[in-house]
Amino acid sequence: MHKGRLEAFSDGVLAIIITIMVLELHAPQHAAHFSDLKPLLPVFLTYAMSFVYVGIYWNNHHHMLQVTQHVTGAVLWANLHLLFWLSLVPFVTGWLGENAIAKAPTALYGFVLLMSGVAYTILLREILRVPGGNKTLAEAVGRDMKGKASVVFYAIAIAVSFWNPSISCLIYVFVALMWFIPDPRIERVVDKAADQ
Amino acid sequence: MHKGRLEAFSDGVLAIIITIMVLELHAPQHAAHFSDLKPLLPVFLTYAMSFVYVGIYWNNHHHMLQVTQHVTGAVLWANLHLLFWLSLVPFVTGWLGENAIAKAPTALYGFVLLMSGVAYTILLREILRVPGGNKTLAEAVGRDMKGKASVVFYAIAIAVSFWNPSISCLIYVFVALMWFIPDPRIERVVDKAADQ
Amino acid sequence: MHKGRLEAFSDGVLAIIITIMVLELHAPQHAAHFSDLKPLLPVFLTYAMSFVYVGIYWNNHHHMLQVTQHVTGAVLWANLHLLFWLSLVPFVTGWLGENAIAKAPTALYGFVLLMSGVAYTILLREILRVPGGNKTLAEAVGRDMKGKASVVFYAIAIAVSFWNPSISCLIYVFVALMWFIPDPRIERVVDKAADQ
Amino acid sequence: MHKGRLEAFSDGVLAIIITIMVLELHAPQHAAHFSDLKPLLPVFLTYAMSFVYVGIYWNNHHHMLQVTQHVTGAVLWANLHLLFWLSLVPFVTGWLGENAIAKAPTALYGFVLLMSGVAYTILLREILRVPGGNKTLAEAVGRDMKGKASVVFYAIAIAVSFWNPSISCLIYVFVALMWFIPDPRIERVVDKAADQ
Repeated sequence: MHKGRLEAFSDGVLAIIITIMVLELHAPQHAAHFSDLKPLLPVFLTYAMSFVYVGIYWNNHHHMLQVTQHVTGAVLWANLHLLFWLSLVPFVTGWLGENAIAKAPTALYGFVLLMSGVAYTILLREILRVPGGNKTLAEAVGRDMKGKASVVFYAIAIAVSFWNPSISCLIYVFVALMWFIPDPRIERVVDKAADQ
Repeated sequence: MHKGRLEAFSDGVLAIIITIMVLELHAPQHAAHFSDLKPLLPVFLTYAMSFVYVGIYWNNHHHMLQVTQHVTGAVLWANLHLLFWLSLVPFVTGWLGENAIAKAPTALYGFVLLMSGVAYTILLREILRVPGGNKTLAEAVGRDMKGKASVVFYAIAIAVSFWNPSISCLIYVFVALMWFIPDPRIERVVDKAADQ
Repeated sequence: MHKGRLEAFSDGVLAIIITIMVLELHAPQHAAHFSDLKPLLPVFLTYAMSFVYVGIYWNNHHHMLQVTQHVTGAVLWANLHLLFWLSLVPFVTGWLGENAIAKAPTALYGFVLLMSGVAYTILLREILRVPGGNKTLAEAVGRDMKGKASVVFYAIAIAVSFWNPSISCLIYVFVALMWFIPDPRIERVVDKAADQ
Repeated sequence: MHKGRLEAFSDGVLAIIITIMVLELHAPQHAAHFSDLKPLLPVFLTYAMSFVYVGIYWNNHHHMLQVTQHVTGAVLWANLHLLFWLSLVPFVTGWLGENAIAKAPTALYGFVLLMSGVAYTILLREILRVPGGNKTLAEAVGRDMKGKASVVFYAIAIAVSFWNPSISCLIYVFVALMWFIPDPRIERVVDKAADQ
């Protein structure tokens, strides 16, 4: 099977997820002062954080499939599983934003990030198991320390959220930064493969 | 006619259907405890079931068009007919979820699944009727026992819903599982065709 | 310029237009009887009619670009102009459905259809004016009697709506049927061109 | 890396942004006269203006990537940064429309346009910095006087909005017209490159 439609469908779903989150930002009616936007600030900040997270997933998804040639039925379902957890991001973002950094919403936000991370790892393994192998991807991912570390950080953040949710949110921001800062090692491996 | 835009448009519509369903999950405002999510549980469960159903349709659509080369005007309309019934899935999912497994919503949910199944069969036949034929698809589909069985199960579930809607929902879950579990016979036929 | 992204962007916008219309169908909460759906019937019928209209536009757009090779900046803007009018279809569909076939909504619905028809004609002309010409499309379209007749019918329906909006809606259904029934002449010309 | 998915994802996000803005136009219920639409007029006008702005960005994005072959990780993030600011357009459009041309919404609308313009410039520079260079694009863009002038106009409009927001809106319309009117110089350069 070709990967074309897998990419197209995932692009569609991720594009919709990243865009409908902004619908949580309800423009206040008959309220035309900057101060009227103040209650929207936590909603905006959580929107920005989730935008970066979905952007990171799209970016990594893009890289992973760039070096993949064939997909199987198991890969299609592993991909839908990832999209399922990511599709819950707008909901948990809304709950977190509208209850400015409360305990339960912070924990649930972390849980959805955790499950998305696990789903991404499952997708990665399914792609590596496709008959014929994928040496480039296997080399680029290596032992996937970043992925494993993220899941551990999410678990810590969930536990901490029942005590101090602000610290949990800082952990989420930290993990996002960890992924945001480009990993020159992966790009090098990918470039090398593309040159061949 | 090429199949490219048929796939792209269907991917777009299916991606939107699968994603806007999550908008039925309204994040409770000023309600930051896990217990506040309890009324959302049936909405979440029906969302998950519908996500799997739309995922199955996308998967099967993907497989079917993978082995199709040409499309006709009749195929385009048969495809739009399928998308029409699937576009009603978010509505019936919302109605089912917000009235936790009541009789009429359960029956209507089954009706939309039934009509989607019928529309899929019509699309399949129109593709098989495209001049030049499609031996690979004809072989892979065979007598389409799974498709016919699904329609019968949906009809039974609709009848049962007026008596015990919980049993109907179990039937919907069962049919979804029946499609979810990969059918090695089809993948083998498709792989064989791809190798040639 | 290549036509690829013009098609992809139009597919995206049309897929969203056709799908978000279903959001007008609000699932009634705490109302689990079939009789609770009765007030939704006009909304559903206008949804179905608009679905067919957007489907027709997608179909014709698909056919038109199938036989087009190059696009210009003017074509891009003519295409956006068409998408602008079509993007208003969900709004007028909602207004028409929620005020079951009242005078003003019926007239406005016709106006948006009329402007979409005009925008489609402008797009067609811009494509025919692309340097190098497009003999296949010019031959297939001919004098575009169907397009011109539609605009006349919409104008009549708008005028009639102030007197009897039900007749106007019948005219809209009639025009849709006129486009829905495949035009063997066009498919023949397109097929002939594809064979060369 | 190939540019295909960057284009597909951007097309998806821009298609959704341009289409969900129309959801701000709420069809009035049980209000079937043309006069009932009067309060929607400013919402409609700001919708039309934002539609043209997003259309301009799509158009320019299309042109820019048309002459680009390779993208880097930095380009992917610069693109997501642009999409982030554009994703806020529906929100500021809604705030501006629902508070017919008040001071703060007019200023914020200008701020989002300003940041989008800055993000577009950053994206342009990242594409020009891709190893191997992009002589066609560099030549077409030149000193990017139009982009720089737009940012200056937005800054003036923001300052003016605290005194007279109507003038600011006229400036936004003027900048849109400046981009709307095709730039024969760029199309010539692009055409020349495509001929080679």
